[in-house]
Amino acid sequence: MEFELKMVIVVRKDLKLSPGKMAAQVAHAAVNCALASKKRRPINFDRWYSEGQKKVVLKAQDLNELIQIKQAAEDAGLVTSLITDAGLTELPPNTTTCLGIGPAPNAEMDRITGHLGLM
Amino acid sequence: MEFELKMVIVVRKDLKLSPGKMAAQVAHAAVNCALASKKRRPINFDRWYSEGQKKVVLKAQDLNELIQIKQAAEDAGLVTSLITDAGLTELPPNTTTCLGIGPAPNAEMDRITGHLGLM
Repeated sequence: MEFELKMVIVVRKDLKLSPGKMAAQVAHAAVNCALASKKRRPINFDRWYSEGQKKVVLKAQDLNELIQIKQAAEDAGLVTSLITDAGLTELPPNTTTCLGIGPAPNAEMDRITGHLGLM
Repeated sequence: MEFELKMVIVVRKDLKLSPGKMAAQVAHAAVNCALASKKRRPINFDRWYSEGQKKVVLKAQDLNELIQIKQAAEDAGLVTSLITDAGLTELPPNTTTCLGIGPAPNAEMDRITGHLGLM
């Protein structure tokens, strides 16, 4: 199966989240982007879902880079979801942890996130 | 905010997934459970989502334990989603990696998953 669309979740690497905590934050972003795109970008959502819902987890240096990527994604008309943790466990309250983008066609997504490394 | 419902994602710890790979697998399970419960358990879904969609990532020893938990969750009438990876990167093809359950009220979920440790 070829994937023509993907969802990307960008995680702040400066927070040094535990793997379980990071997975839960990434899942928040993915659920939000899936629900938002199902409503607002149903054609993208349906294609992405039927292809097998490809997701890629990438890393940003810090909050500043995350916010820049969010702005670029919104300027390109992509669905985004910025996740802020209530901070009940590992983190100070209201720490922004990650950003979900898409799903969107690969080329569109790569223009925004192609420079980021895999988490 | 009190959380009265949660979604649980149980990950096989014997696979030793990288943190980024694990996060993507957990996100697959969370998206599937969210979409399935929105359709089949809309009251649970709506309460869970409006509370802030609590998610907990727990660990199972191996595939055998994952399958046992899936069976127990289904016997209790909970939504489940078992995730199998195409195996394009870290894993052999068709490796079952994790199991999403719920969302469901805390007490119901704890009867099925309360014995598992945090990932």
